[in-house]
Amino acid sequence: MRRGVLVVDTLPDPAPAAGELLVRTLACGICGSDLHALRHADRLVDAAREAGVPFMMDPARDVVMGHEFCAEVLDFGPDTQRALRPGTRVVSMPLAVGADGVHGVGYSNEYPGGYGEMMRLCEMFVLPVPDELPTEHAALTEPMAVGVHAVAKARLAPGDVPLVIGCGPVGLAVVAALRLRDVRPIVAADFSPARRALAERMGADVVVDPATERAIDAWQRVACGPAVVFECVGVPGLLDAIMREAPRDARIVVAGVCMEDDRIRPMLGINKELSVQFVLGYTPEEFATTLADIAAGRIPVAPLVTGRVGVDGVPAAFETLARPEAHAKILVEPWR
Amino acid sequence: MRRGVLVVDTLPDPAPAAGELLVRTLACGICGSDLHALRHADRLVDAAREAGVPFMMDPARDVVMGHEFCAEVLDFGPDTQRALRPGTRVVSMPLAVGADGVHGVGYSNEYPGGYGEMMRLCEMFVLPVPDELPTEHAALTEPMAVGVHAVAKARLAPGDVPLVIGCGPVGLAVVAALRLRDVRPIVAADFSPARRALAERMGADVVVDPATERAIDAWQRVACGPAVVFECVGVPGLLDAIMREAPRDARIVVAGVCMEDDRIRPMLGINKELSVQFVLGYTPEEFATTLADIAAGRIPVAPLVTGRVGVDGVPAAFETLARPEAHAKILVEPWR
Repeated sequence: MRRGVLVVDTLPDPAPAAGELLVRTLACGICGSDLHALRHADRLVDAAREAGVPFMMDPARDVVMGHEFCAEVLDFGPDTQRALRPGTRVVSMPLAVGADGVHGVGYSNEYPGGYGEMMRLCEMFVLPVPDELPTEHAALTEPMAVGVHAVAKARLAPGDVPLVIGCGPVGLAVVAALRLRDVRPIVAADFSPARRALAERMGADVVVDPATERAIDAWQRVACGPAVVFECVGVPGLLDAIMREAPRDARIVVAGVCMEDDRIRPMLGINKELSVQFVLGYTPEEFATTLADIAAGRIPVAPLVTGRVGVDGVPAAFETLARPEAHAKILVEPWR
Repeated sequence: MRRGVLVVDTLPDPAPAAGELLVRTLACGICGSDLHALRHADRLVDAAREAGVPFMMDPARDVVMGHEFCAEVLDFGPDTQRALRPGTRVVSMPLAVGADGVHGVGYSNEYPGGYGEMMRLCEMFVLPVPDELPTEHAALTEPMAVGVHAVAKARLAPGDVPLVIGCGPVGLAVVAALRLRDVRPIVAADFSPARRALAERMGADVVVDPATERAIDAWQRVACGPAVVFECVGVPGLLDAIMREAPRDARIVVAGVCMEDDRIRPMLGINKELSVQFVLGYTPEEFATTLADIAAGRIPVAPLVTGRVGVDGVPAAFETLARPEAHAKILVEPWR
């Protein structure tokens, strides 16, 4: 990303600092947030700063994006334990603790992400990938951890019945995390038939096309417990629409990332005593257990990979993902 | 209330239906919601309808408001148990189950509220007032129950530190309910010196003038646990301001009743993983325990009564309460 435009260029190899590894990217998923960031990088930085989140990115300088990666250890910087041999495949939370503060790998001028051929990673965050786990599945640890975290933050009680609004990568990860906990029935809604089919493969019991039936009506047909609605789209107006349709005492978990201002009608929340839990990211423990659950086959990620491109294909992949019907996750393989 | 204007007029005595009592109002507090309702009755009805809440009020017809009352039993309708003698003082949740559905006493064309001399109440909701409890304190059961409910819905955990934004009647009730549970320190903010003084008398440990210090900064000076912020004002923009200032993982309880549309920045909630719990009213159990706690002196309501008027004084009292500095609760005594 160079001043709001995707550019394919050759940069100097990153140099691992103290406590860091040099790795070679094997596969890296394209995230919807990257599409947002390309258009609204300034807003992203401002919003983080306003929330007091350290976010060391200057959008005026080059950024190599990509934070959903599986990589291979190449070399070690100073002061490293070197417990992993070169050639070991690893994943990592896309977080780096630099001399000047915390960086997001893939949202930083100093820590290039997985759309590039090489990355610097902090040794303390790196996890080895089990031998039997395909690289492309390991690369899905990060987006799946997002779903695991959203479901954890929902603090589900026995009898709660989930409704997942939106079956893009976030919604599909939420469906998978709900199924992992055996929270059922799982009702999931999306306008796209392909995405509804994916939701079923990830574990949804009932899928709804909101063009033909209100999601909450489909939910009501099968639910006999409190509603927990996962907002997994992130566009203005959707939270208000969910608040309008939600039953009394519903809990809404906002996992979609709406980067614009939004309008709500507080009286909808007040009259129905709704709650809204905003969520983001995951804990280190959630990231590690997600990797283990994928490796053990408890999170079926295979259906999610719908495309593969080399570095040269990234701009076209961004175009494709702007029309989400056809794809769930496109993986960048920079070595291609 | 006659088509958006307060009018003092003589109406026919209400006739108790099956399961109902006829009571004489002894004292009835003026609630901020009544001020809202006078100006925005249509909006109130629309919002309730939109939320699926039955709200049987036609603002085009006369409404006798007043839902924070203590009254005296006069007579009984058919099919009543008559466990209470005439002359017994009672309070009641302002709810009535009529032949056509649920009515709000004081927000209904059929069930006049406590600004009038007589009311019909459902026998099932009526609670006798302990002999030693002054009438004017019993009349504060309803607004105090609002605070008790808001604190219950906050699901406080050991170590949580509350911050109460706004020390009008709702905020003061929240302060009292927090003190009742011994959740301390209690930090409370209001621009009005009189209200800050009241907050201290109700149990606040630290009071803040937001004109001289950010409420959250005062909170941070004394807090060493998670933040639970009670929004007790109910004006557009305040939720967004709280979301901007709130620390990471803060829980916001919206007890203020904002009847207008509101604007939020979801990224503030997302980046800090905030939660927002909207609350309204109370349960029958909370209403009953609040009465008992007031009677036992565990909720100090005496400081809250800052004025008394007869029916003729209600319009002037509404004017006075629009400038909230001088008053907390003005009681209407229709028998005056």
